[in-house]
Amino acid sequence: MNIGICGLGTVGSGTFNVLTRNTALIDARAGANIRIAQVAARRINPACDTAEVPMTTDIFAVVNNPDVDVVVELIGGTTVARDLVLEAIRNGKHVVTANKALIALHGNEIFEAARQKSVMVAFEAAVAGGIPIIKTLREGLGANRIEWLAGIINGTSNFILTAMEEQGSAFADALSEAQALGYAEADPTFDIEGIDAAHKLVILASLAFGIPLQFDKVYTQGITNLDLQDLAYARELGYRIKHLGIARETEKGVEVRVHPTLIPDNSLIAEVDGVMNAVMVKGDAVGPTLFYGAGAGAEPTASAVVADIIDVARALNSAPETRVPYLAFSNASFNGTPIIAIEEVETAYYLRMSALDRPGVLSKLASIMSDRGISIEAIIQKRPLPGEDHVRLIMLTNTALERDLVAAVEAIEALDAIAGPVVRIRVEALDK
Amino acid sequence: MNIGICGLGTVGSGTFNVLTRNTALIDARAGANIRIAQVAARRINPACDTAEVPMTTDIFAVVNNPDVDVVVELIGGTTVARDLVLEAIRNGKHVVTANKALIALHGNEIFEAARQKSVMVAFEAAVAGGIPIIKTLREGLGANRIEWLAGIINGTSNFILTAMEEQGSAFADALSEAQALGYAEADPTFDIEGIDAAHKLVILASLAFGIPLQFDKVYTQGITNLDLQDLAYARELGYRIKHLGIARETEKGVEVRVHPTLIPDNSLIAEVDGVMNAVMVKGDAVGPTLFYGAGAGAEPTASAVVADIIDVARALNSAPETRVPYLAFSNASFNGTPIIAIEEVETAYYLRMSALDRPGVLSKLASIMSDRGISIEAIIQKRPLPGEDHVRLIMLTNTALERDLVAAVEAIEALDAIAGPVVRIRVEALDK
Repeated sequence: MNIGICGLGTVGSGTFNVLTRNTALIDARAGANIRIAQVAARRINPACDTAEVPMTTDIFAVVNNPDVDVVVELIGGTTVARDLVLEAIRNGKHVVTANKALIALHGNEIFEAARQKSVMVAFEAAVAGGIPIIKTLREGLGANRIEWLAGIINGTSNFILTAMEEQGSAFADALSEAQALGYAEADPTFDIEGIDAAHKLVILASLAFGIPLQFDKVYTQGITNLDLQDLAYARELGYRIKHLGIARETEKGVEVRVHPTLIPDNSLIAEVDGVMNAVMVKGDAVGPTLFYGAGAGAEPTASAVVADIIDVARALNSAPETRVPYLAFSNASFNGTPIIAIEEVETAYYLRMSALDRPGVLSKLASIMSDRGISIEAIIQKRPLPGEDHVRLIMLTNTALERDLVAAVEAIEALDAIAGPVVRIRVEALDK
Repeated sequence: MNIGICGLGTVGSGTFNVLTRNTALIDARAGANIRIAQVAARRINPACDTAEVPMTTDIFAVVNNPDVDVVVELIGGTTVARDLVLEAIRNGKHVVTANKALIALHGNEIFEAARQKSVMVAFEAAVAGGIPIIKTLREGLGANRIEWLAGIINGTSNFILTAMEEQGSAFADALSEAQALGYAEADPTFDIEGIDAAHKLVILASLAFGIPLQFDKVYTQGITNLDLQDLAYARELGYRIKHLGIARETEKGVEVRVHPTLIPDNSLIAEVDGVMNAVMVKGDAVGPTLFYGAGAGAEPTASAVVADIIDVARALNSAPETRVPYLAFSNASFNGTPIIAIEEVETAYYLRMSALDRPGVLSKLASIMSDRGISIEAIIQKRPLPGEDHVRLIMLTNTALERDLVAAVEAIEALDAIAGPVVRIRVEALDK
C-alpha cells in the first residue's frame, strides 16, 4: 500500500520518522507493505531524512498521484485541507487525517463524500493525540450505551492549570511559560479559550451518542478568567479544577460542553497533570473507564496517524459496508437526539462572592437559592483580604438547572451587601 | 450472524443481558444483525431471561449446531473448554472466549488450528475485563515498538492490598473480606498466588513483543507473604506496593514477571485501588499510556466479549490474511527473542531486615552490597518493636542483577548480627 504524506511539520515529520523507523514491525502487524510513495512539503524538515523519498512542494500533486492509495493530510487548517481531502476522495483515495478542526467543522460533508466513493477517512489523531480513544469508542466499547464521557483534551490548558496550582503562577505567567516551552502557540486563543477542546469534544460526542457533528451547538468556556484563589479554595474543599470536555446523554438530550470544572481530588482524572491528556468514558456495561497518554507532540500524534494507516491497509479490499462506520454508527442510524442548550443543563456549582460582613446576608443568600429550588451543599466564609472590607463567601450547591442558577446569581449580585460579580464554576462528581 | 453461548454463569449471563438490552445499538455499530441462536447451560440462571432463546444443557450441541456462526465460550477451565473450542474450530466456527487460562496454556495450539481453518478466535475479555487492552496493543498502538508494560491485572489482589493499606487489615482478614464481598473465590489460590495475573501477562507479553505464549517461563509471585509493615514503610519512602504484571524488552530478551512491586506514589497507576484494573504501556512513539477500568464482573467482562462479537461480525466475510493476527503479528513474524530467567533480570530492591543494634553492622552490610556492585539508594533504621531487641533496617538499592542481589541477601542472612530472613520486594520507577 502506497501512502502520500501532505505536510511535514511537527506531526508530518513524526509520522515520517515512525513509519521509517518501525517499518518491519508495522508491516508485520498490518500484514501489508506500507510504503511512502510521495511527500509534499513547502520545505525540507531537518527532523527527518527524506533523501530517498519523492518530494514535491505541491500538496495537490499527492492527491493526483496515481501511485498513492492513501492521502495522509497533516497540513492543518480548514480551507486548503478541506479542498485537499475532498479532492483526494473524489480521486478515490482513502484519507488519514489528524485535523480536529476539519473533522469537527466539515466532517459531515467529508464523510458523505467518502461514503459515496466508498473510501475510508480515518482520524484517530484528531482527538487526544496518541490515546486510541476513537478506536475505543467505536470498537472497544461497542457493546455499551455510553452514559457520559469527560476528558482533559487540551494539553496546553492542562499545563497552564497545573503550573498555576503547583507554582502559584498567575494565568498570564503560566501561559508565558507554556509558550516558552513550546506547549502553546504564539496565538494561544484556540487552546485557552477552549475552542480546540470543543473541536475534539464534538467528535467524541458524535461517536458516543450517534449524533451528527454539530460544532455550533457546543458550549465553550476557556480558562482565561480562572483566578488562583479559586484553585486554592477548590483544593480546600476536596476538589481540583480541570478544564474538561463533557458529553452526557440525558432524558432531555445530549449535553456537549467545555469549561473549567471542579472534580473530586480522589478521582483518577484529577491526577492528570501537565500536557498529558485523559478521557473518562462511562458505559452502561463496562462502568467507568479512563484512557491516558500524550495528547500532542510529533511522535505521540504520529502513533495515532500510523495506527490509522495500518487499519486502512487491513481494510483496503474489504466490503465498504463491513468497515467501522466513520462516526461509529451507520448514517442511517443517526438518531434525532438534540444537543441541549446550556440553560437546560443541570450541574452543581461552586460560587465565590464578596459580601459585607453584616447580619442577615447569609439568610438572604439562602432564601434566594431556596426560592429557586437550589440547595446549598456547603458554605465557607473567608476573612477579608488585607485592605478590603468584604469577606469572601464560597458556596457549593447541589445539582441545579443552569437557568435557575443564573437567575439566583443575578439576584445575589443585585444585593447591596454583595460587591462585584459572583464567580461561578461548575462541579462534577465523576465516578472514580 | 448467529451466535451460540456456552456457559451462563457470571460472564455468560452478563453477555446475554448486554446483547439483549443493547441489541439496536450493537447492530447499528456492527452493521449486522447479531442474534443469539442457542444457549448451553447446565441450569437456568435467574439473572437473565432466556425464555425466548433455544436452550440446551449440552454445550457440544452448540458447536455442532449448523445455525451457529460464532461460538462464545464462557464455561471456563482448560479441559472441556479446550475440547469445545477445538471442536468449534474443526467445525469451521469462529470463537469468542473470555478464558485467560485457556489462551495462556493452549493458545498456540488453538491459534494454529484456527489459522488452518481460517476462523477467528477473539479473546479481549481474557485480560483486564472491560478494558480494551488487547485491541489497544494489537491495533491502537500498532505503530509502536513496545518498550514495556505493567499492569494491575488481578482485581482480587488489588482489593486485598487496598484493604490492607486503608484499613490496616492483615492479609488473612483482607482476604476474608474479599471472599465475603464475592471478590475472591472460596479457593483463592489462582488470584493470591499470582497465577491468574500470570495467565494474563503471558498474553499481553506475546501481543506486545511478538513472541509465542510461554506460560512456563513467567516468574510468578503472589501477595500471600506481604506484611503490613512493608506497606507502611513503602508509603514512608514515597512508594506504594502494588501487585503488578510486568513485561519488558531488554537487550538480553523479554522479562515476564508477576510480583508485588514498590512504585512511586505519584504515578497514576499507584492510585488504582480496590478491584479496578489498569495497564500502563510504554511505546517508543506514544510514550507512557494508561488504560483503566473494571477487570472483572458480569457486565464489564461482557462489554469485552460483545466487542469481540462485533469485530467478528464485521470481519465475517473478510479475507483471512487481512484480519488482525491472533497474537498481533503474523505467525511468520514471531521473533526468537527469549524470555529471560529471573536471575538475569535487573531491578531495584526494597530490603527489610532485623539487626542487632551494635557498631559495625551497617558497614558490614554496605561492604557486602558494594562487593557485588550494588549501590544503596537509601537506608533507614527503625527502633525495635516492643519486646524485641533487634532494630529494623530498611534499605532501597539501585538497579542490580537479581543473581547478585540474591547472593548479597544470602551473605547478609549469614551474618551473626542479622536475625531471620531478609524481606525483599522489587522496586520499579514507572514513568507517570
